[in-house]
Amino acid sequence: MRKEQIQPKAVIVIFGATGDLAKRKLYPSIHRLYENGQIGDDFAVVGVGRRPWTNEDLRETVQNSIAKFEYKKDVKEFTSHFYYHPFDVTCSDSYRDLNELIEQLESTYQIPNNRMFYLAMAPEFFGTIAKFLKSEGVTSTNGWSRLVIEKPFGHDLPSAKALNQEIREAFTEDQIYRIDHYLGKQMVQNIEVIRFANAIFEPLWTNRYISNIQITSSEDLGVEDRARYYEKSGALRDMVQNHILQMVALLAMEPPIKLNTEEIRSEKVKVLRALRPIQTDQIEQFFVRGQYDAGMIDEHQVGAYRDEQNVAEDSNTETFVAGKLLIDNFRWAGVPFYIRTGKRMKKKSTQIVVQFKDIPMNLYYGNGETMHPNLLVIHIQPDEGITLHLNARKLGGSTFAEPIKLDYCHNCEDGINTPEAYEKLILDCLHGDATNFAHWDEVALSWNFVDVISQYWENNKTLSPNYKAGSMGPKASDELLGRDGFHWWPI
Amino acid sequence: MRKEQIQPKAVIVIFGATGDLAKRKLYPSIHRLYENGQIGDDFAVVGVGRRPWTNEDLRETVQNSIAKFEYKKDVKEFTSHFYYHPFDVTCSDSYRDLNELIEQLESTYQIPNNRMFYLAMAPEFFGTIAKFLKSEGVTSTNGWSRLVIEKPFGHDLPSAKALNQEIREAFTEDQIYRIDHYLGKQMVQNIEVIRFANAIFEPLWTNRYISNIQITSSEDLGVEDRARYYEKSGALRDMVQNHILQMVALLAMEPPIKLNTEEIRSEKVKVLRALRPIQTDQIEQFFVRGQYDAGMIDEHQVGAYRDEQNVAEDSNTETFVAGKLLIDNFRWAGVPFYIRTGKRMKKKSTQIVVQFKDIPMNLYYGNGETMHPNLLVIHIQPDEGITLHLNARKLGGSTFAEPIKLDYCHNCEDGINTPEAYEKLILDCLHGDATNFAHWDEVALSWNFVDVISQYWENNKTLSPNYKAGSMGPKASDELLGRDGFHWWPI
Repeated sequence: MRKEQIQPKAVIVIFGATGDLAKRKLYPSIHRLYENGQIGDDFAVVGVGRRPWTNEDLRETVQNSIAKFEYKKDVKEFTSHFYYHPFDVTCSDSYRDLNELIEQLESTYQIPNNRMFYLAMAPEFFGTIAKFLKSEGVTSTNGWSRLVIEKPFGHDLPSAKALNQEIREAFTEDQIYRIDHYLGKQMVQNIEVIRFANAIFEPLWTNRYISNIQITSSEDLGVEDRARYYEKSGALRDMVQNHILQMVALLAMEPPIKLNTEEIRSEKVKVLRALRPIQTDQIEQFFVRGQYDAGMIDEHQVGAYRDEQNVAEDSNTETFVAGKLLIDNFRWAGVPFYIRTGKRMKKKSTQIVVQFKDIPMNLYYGNGETMHPNLLVIHIQPDEGITLHLNARKLGGSTFAEPIKLDYCHNCEDGINTPEAYEKLILDCLHGDATNFAHWDEVALSWNFVDVISQYWENNKTLSPNYKAGSMGPKASDELLGRDGFHWWPI
Repeated sequence: MRKEQIQPKAVIVIFGATGDLAKRKLYPSIHRLYENGQIGDDFAVVGVGRRPWTNEDLRETVQNSIAKFEYKKDVKEFTSHFYYHPFDVTCSDSYRDLNELIEQLESTYQIPNNRMFYLAMAPEFFGTIAKFLKSEGVTSTNGWSRLVIEKPFGHDLPSAKALNQEIREAFTEDQIYRIDHYLGKQMVQNIEVIRFANAIFEPLWTNRYISNIQITSSEDLGVEDRARYYEKSGALRDMVQNHILQMVALLAMEPPIKLNTEEIRSEKVKVLRALRPIQTDQIEQFFVRGQYDAGMIDEHQVGAYRDEQNVAEDSNTETFVAGKLLIDNFRWAGVPFYIRTGKRMKKKSTQIVVQFKDIPMNLYYGNGETMHPNLLVIHIQPDEGITLHLNARKLGGSTFAEPIKLDYCHNCEDGINTPEAYEKLILDCLHGDATNFAHWDEVALSWNFVDVISQYWENNKTLSPNYKAGSMGPKASDELLGRDGFHWWPI
């Protein structure tokens, strides 16, 4: 039987059940899995939190969180699978009581001894929770026991190592599912398919035919209510260390010998190992940081980062990063991977542009025209799809080749909602498929790469607002590509 | 200045001015060129025919022929450029009178001594006309003098040679514009652009990556009122010798050293020279002929070919041809070019499908799935555009790669009418651009290739109705590809 045809059976324990992530993402995702029949009736969710809620409180919260979605199955029946358990993460009694509750539910719903622990809360308690889960026997199951943790996974390599060591005392690496929700996105998962299920791309996927690759992940929103976290993190840690380096790895990896978790990870790790480390004296040359000033977005005036609540008046935190990565292997030598991400940019968009080299001795240059290069654009969000930019002769008798677009748009197909990243990732974890989660080796290598840069920027407190809200970042970001004879393709 | 910005000045002489081609194609095309400003006010058209028409008769005919099109400029002003000249093609006086008229018009419209002679009539008079045009001095100009001739250019190599010799007495090869109206089609002209203006295709355009190429040109119409001609011609001479072999040449040619007439022709000729000749004893293996029987098209009952007016009861004429061509050069060794064309088929469609090879050791085969090959489809008519068939993971959390389509559609763009083939070709001829016309070398090589087959079929009178109107041709056409492990991609 295919994985898709099996309904996994488990108790899902959510730490942080009253929190924002649970409400916005986890409950709706579990509900969708239920609606689609990807999980059956033999599941239970235990919501864990400090607040003295009842089961009814939780069930009402769950019901509210899915109210805006369409459904056919009975909602009361669905929410009846949810149980609230008031909890003190530092108290062993809490864990013993939790264990008892889980055992009851396993009996009630005839669930084999399978447990998913989802830590949807601040990372400072991850170690404590892991330790108690083990010491109080909650993880000793006859079935499986898996830990799902959210970012941030540390704020540099040493802190990530310390955190990893703590959770590794209770869970082995293959029980740990580190969420990188970009890996749950339809079109990020499609990178691998586009590359390896199409005969026409793989032969072109080298420095012989590709001139550069551009990854943009822009937000129009500012720091919102996350300033306390963001002030310490910044765009480099918040976006580059995880999401963007993951996309780089998927784009650049060699074809794995099998499309399974181990082989894909092994190829991704090889890419991260081949990333050319940036020396301190090269950082200004390879990386650009920015911080937004006041500006206009969609005809609304918005304030500067330093004027946001909980942001220091002289904040040195970058809200924008652009960088040039080089991958020192046979396939990619000489092909820059340009990345950029930031807040308060012109619009929300994540996309990858693969720019192919110009044709040799352009046959059409005779007319004094410059030919547009071929581009393969992978739209990740909010649009999902693929666009191939080619040249062809346009209508009306012109003799010139002009750019044309071949489009495939996922979410343009009528009535289909693409599944939320979290929905896919929760299901993957229930099935024990860790392909779309970050392995420790990847996390460690990524921190190793960015730490040099973030340390340099921390010690060098010269950042001041250098791009207007509503723009595409500081001028230096354009110059980064300009020096190589390239420019950012518009989003 | 670009060619497009110059308005050519000439007198256009149309032999067969009262005929069908003139009314349906030539007058509307000249009108469009006038409307678009591609020709200015310094032109005149002399309509030549046997009937005793007046200028007014011709102008009314022209006006009627463009009545269904939109226009902005004054119609009377346009038609005032048209002059009728009653004519006897075998009488030298006619030519002297014609010469006088042309000279008058050149003076009236201040046209430098440029003359286009368009033979829109039965080919039996081509030689006579050419001879008199020369002997009576009509072609002796200070400007240019060009001959445009319509198909059929002979019905086999000897007759084509004879015809060519006759017209070559009055015109040099570079004064002769042999119309192949497929070469005027937007998307046929785009073959060269798609191949040479896009960096991603040329590296793939070889037997390493392409498994086969399929060219279909199907008609839903039957023989209509052309049975007299068609009975002697058949599909092989009517379609394959010219249009289809031209498309093969454009698809298969090496990149020319310049994109000019001579270099492109030279590469096309090399393809035709590399076409593997079919030996008589291999014809059954490489070629399939068919003739339509009664059947249903679009829910209408239509009759058999043999029941059409002016068709012999035991007609041996093929209304369908399928064939497998091999091009014996480095690039194409081992890549079959499958062609098919016929009347009374399911629908009207001309398209080219480039089928790429399967990916090496399909990474996704692990799931027991067969992966669809990548296809590049060039839609020539009635749709115009490009479709690239890729594989990607579809919506809804499936883990499988499925076929998706990336589309670019020319005539979907709002409000744009693609220019008629004739419009483009007349303009090309006025500009002296012979790129999109058939050179004698191409004509001769094409006849040489098809003559073996048509002779075999003529001597082998075993053809009988073997496909139903409304189908895609006889079963043997499917078997032709089936033997190689391929199948026709649906139109």
